[in-house]
Amino acid sequence: MRKPVYMDNSATTRCSDASMASMTPLFAESYGNPSALYDGGRAAFKALEDARASVAASLGALKSEIFFTSGGTESDNWAIASAAEAAEAALLSGKGAGGRHMVCSAVEHSAVLRPLQRLERRGWEVTVLETDRTGAVSAESLEEAIRPDTKLVSVMAANNVVGTLQDVKSLAGVCRRRRVLFHTDAVQAAGHVKIDVRDWDADMVSVSAHKFHGPKGVGALFSKVPRRPDPLVLGGGQERGGRSGTENVPGAVGMAAALAEATANMERDAARLKSMRDRLIEGALKIPGVLLTGDPTRRLPGHASFVIEGIRHSAYLIGMLNERGVCASSGSACTAASKEADHVLQALGYGWEPFASLRLTLSVYNTEEEASYVLEILPDCISELRRRDSLGSTGARVLGDGEAAAKERLRTAGKGGWKV
Amino acid sequence: MRKPVYMDNSATTRCSDASMASMTPLFAESYGNPSALYDGGRAAFKALEDARASVAASLGALKSEIFFTSGGTESDNWAIASAAEAAEAALLSGKGAGGRHMVCSAVEHSAVLRPLQRLERRGWEVTVLETDRTGAVSAESLEEAIRPDTKLVSVMAANNVVGTLQDVKSLAGVCRRRRVLFHTDAVQAAGHVKIDVRDWDADMVSVSAHKFHGPKGVGALFSKVPRRPDPLVLGGGQERGGRSGTENVPGAVGMAAALAEATANMERDAARLKSMRDRLIEGALKIPGVLLTGDPTRRLPGHASFVIEGIRHSAYLIGMLNERGVCASSGSACTAASKEADHVLQALGYGWEPFASLRLTLSVYNTEEEASYVLEILPDCISELRRRDSLGSTGARVLGDGEAAAKERLRTAGKGGWKV
Repeated sequence: MRKPVYMDNSATTRCSDASMASMTPLFAESYGNPSALYDGGRAAFKALEDARASVAASLGALKSEIFFTSGGTESDNWAIASAAEAAEAALLSGKGAGGRHMVCSAVEHSAVLRPLQRLERRGWEVTVLETDRTGAVSAESLEEAIRPDTKLVSVMAANNVVGTLQDVKSLAGVCRRRRVLFHTDAVQAAGHVKIDVRDWDADMVSVSAHKFHGPKGVGALFSKVPRRPDPLVLGGGQERGGRSGTENVPGAVGMAAALAEATANMERDAARLKSMRDRLIEGALKIPGVLLTGDPTRRLPGHASFVIEGIRHSAYLIGMLNERGVCASSGSACTAASKEADHVLQALGYGWEPFASLRLTLSVYNTEEEASYVLEILPDCISELRRRDSLGSTGARVLGDGEAAAKERLRTAGKGGWKV
Repeated sequence: MRKPVYMDNSATTRCSDASMASMTPLFAESYGNPSALYDGGRAAFKALEDARASVAASLGALKSEIFFTSGGTESDNWAIASAAEAAEAALLSGKGAGGRHMVCSAVEHSAVLRPLQRLERRGWEVTVLETDRTGAVSAESLEEAIRPDTKLVSVMAANNVVGTLQDVKSLAGVCRRRRVLFHTDAVQAAGHVKIDVRDWDADMVSVSAHKFHGPKGVGALFSKVPRRPDPLVLGGGQERGGRSGTENVPGAVGMAAALAEATANMERDAARLKSMRDRLIEGALKIPGVLLTGDPTRRLPGHASFVIEGIRHSAYLIGMLNERGVCASSGSACTAASKEADHVLQALGYGWEPFASLRLTLSVYNTEEEASYVLEILPDCISELRRRDSLGSTGARVLGDGEAAAKERLRTAGKGGWKV
């Protein structure tokens, strides 16, 4: 049986051998609590701090600017909560109204959008910046959106759905001049494109290990000194008071190993992935009715994304590719089987297409043979699907039972023994 | 060289072989994102849901009542935040004042106390229940503390510092009758004493995997149906909207395996640990000036805790035991090197003793030989320390450079290659 072709690396990645090897001894051998005073605690503490130094070095940060979290979503939530905390505390204690305004882009991940929506329900105002058709935010529009009561701007470094790279430096520059905190969700960017937080001049940056061949369940928030973000999770005061809870030492160490590996090989790997990506894009665009989303060149090295005319719902296509051993997605993993159209594609001005999108995201484990195979089967899949759907026009918004079936797929048992 | 004697299992535990084996294939083989529609995503989803069912079965809960989190601290924070959210939203939107009162005990973990203190800074009122000398809260005192505007009561199931088991059922009963939400931090209890959330009739229960031989960085919150806790961490809507972020599948699976194992063997293991614990207690109490803290019998099976007259600071004793290959602690791992006295021992009415406490916590990996060894060296360590300190009285509160030295130990390098 053919090994599945895994091209959903924006959703999650295979843990690298180096990352796994770094974690293994920390589960049942050197498993001490980093806060403990005996040798085993000190060894765990050292492992954790070495991981912190390594992550910092990979991002151009100081060691004291790296706080480990449970992942990108928590980092994003924390960045927003830390900016909101002071203003809300002032308001609730009656010590002053305080500004309650934040700015984000329309193509942010839901880990940014939903905490902002919660703040709106609590009386905050949020300005959502429109983007161009590729998902890029202009410095001018940000400049206009900032108000005297703005507490935070959050714009992602690379988009998960269309792969577009943001000009983080220019956006951060606007915020610096206007003395507003700037956060960027770099979950898709970290380990894939060079990040230098000093060059960006960002105040906060979120990263997630499982997006660059580290383990799930661990991430980090960079927070520029001397600002110490108000905690989201409180307790024993770990992470220098920033993030409580017994530290996930294996996770932090596995993350550091994966990021160091990705950073060391970035130039070589990115060149290879870009070439493979461009071959995928070129091949796919030869199929009539297939259009590229995002920017043709200013995009993540391994990220190819499309909308496809004449098919009802991406879930059908994903299922068809799955039957042929290809793991792909329509966009955000979180909303794979959702009845709602993807908010990113909608924000970019797509109408019917959000229901018929395809995302192929590569990693260093992908081969040219795999890319060839996908290009070989893709035209037939699309033709077959168009025949099956028998759609007269490309404007169909009809959702049939395919979407329900897709949801059912999620609920029903995996076939057992599946391995990517 | 002698293998270290690890007796700090309340701080963290060795990951069990079964737990590790369950996780291993999920890092680099079956590493799919549970939200993805292809086979690899479905397999990950199934692994996650099987883990949820298993954790639920171990706790007497329904599968739909288990939400995976990043650990016990997040679970505690979330329980409190979910109870606060509705009241605060009402207040901020001007739709009504809403009650803003919560109740906890004085011996809670800081993962409960500190979020409550934050709420106090935001205008909430918190009633802190006193306990008896063992750390037990009476149902009567809880009854008196509940007010018409009380939104949550949080009392831990088993205390981390003195091991005392709370009568959770009677406390939850009071809350049920008074129609107030009841949360219990069962981080120390889970996997060690039988938990049946239906029998307890608790609304929310926090557990943490690394306290029962599962991995660090994962825990769960039980939340009784039909109440769905307002999220602490928002985003892609994972965990049925309760806790966003790509699920830590290996962590959840490793947690389920560890808890199932602990639950299956609980009767046998608890009997063995109790016997070993009681031998430790009996032996330690033969040393003049050593006193038991907590309840002699109503305590965690593997938990022995003491205060020791005539020594300055626990850190000295921990260091001395460390030199002899024994991993022990003074109480809460989080405050091991702290200059502040332990808040639990203070709450129990201890004066000088908080600086001179010793906690020995056992696991199934400990042997009778290890217990004998500890009992063999402990009298000499204490005598030696008393000589060195040359304290004339037992009332000394003087903190010398020992505490600073202990902190320095944390900062300096682990000796490399240390394994518990």
